[in-house]
Amino acid sequence: MTSAESTGSKPSPVRLLYAEELAIGKHLDFESYEMTADEIVAFGAKWDPLPLHLSEEHAGGTAFGRLVASGLHTMAVFQLFAVRSAYAHWDMFAGRRLDDVRWLSPVFPGDTLTGGLDVQTVVMTHPGRALVTCAGWLETERGRVLEVVAESYINRRP
Amino acid sequence: MTSAESTGSKPSPVRLLYAEELAIGKHLDFESYEMTADEIVAFGAKWDPLPLHLSEEHAGGTAFGRLVASGLHTMAVFQLFAVRSAYAHWDMFAGRRLDDVRWLSPVFPGDTLTGGLDVQTVVMTHPGRALVTCAGWLETERGRVLEVVAESYINRRP
Repeated sequence: MTSAESTGSKPSPVRLLYAEELAIGKHLDFESYEMTADEIVAFGAKWDPLPLHLSEEHAGGTAFGRLVASGLHTMAVFQLFAVRSAYAHWDMFAGRRLDDVRWLSPVFPGDTLTGGLDVQTVVMTHPGRALVTCAGWLETERGRVLEVVAESYINRRP
Repeated sequence: MTSAESTGSKPSPVRLLYAEELAIGKHLDFESYEMTADEIVAFGAKWDPLPLHLSEEHAGGTAFGRLVASGLHTMAVFQLFAVRSAYAHWDMFAGRRLDDVRWLSPVFPGDTLTGGLDVQTVVMTHPGRALVTCAGWLETERGRVLEVVAESYINRRP
């Protein structure tokens, strides 16, 4: 008996992918996430307490004239998507660097974010791990709102 | 009567600084912030659900062998400090870009973060606003854990 199937026991969870197994140019689509006014205000009050993130009233006096999501909040949605679609399926060591984070357009309450991620390069930097660079983005129906280049260490096959 | 003082009314709030008024090379020290296990787990579960951020038990099987704060959580503390020490006192238009975000070392429960920010350049990019580049960092008593180069648009004097 050499496998879970032949013993009748439950199959093991899906094995995480090693750096060697990531396909260069692989594209992963994200789910969608609706940005609510309540979450924008809660996130802003906690981590980015500038008037444009705190309330419609405070934001009325800013250049946008209305409530706008913190750029860090938009990045948090990007990270959640990247984990769910990619990192959770890879044998991650740790995040290392964001090369470039661009906020292209404001995100307002009611906007629905979606996006994707492309695996760009896998560089064997250490005996046990590789540096994987991914280019990702988020968009609303009005167009792109965020672009990120993220570098992470992924474990190599032992 | 030309000022609040001469009318006996309350003084106005401190005026926000325009881009022209920011001193190149100006250094601002941050407050301190303690990273608790509860907040690390709550932040990780919401925005970065990888095993090393979810519980001591999940993290036990990772390369660090213990709970580590999400890199995005560390960045959120940086943003909170940057707002309190700098952005809240400037006539902000919006964040534009992070040029480079480096996680230098893991942040563990019980670590106290502090750090600072230097104003590097002020570039007059638009009739009404300027692009201000700041280099900032966070550190624990073991050394630096995060370095960030942040570009923001600040309004110019009308």
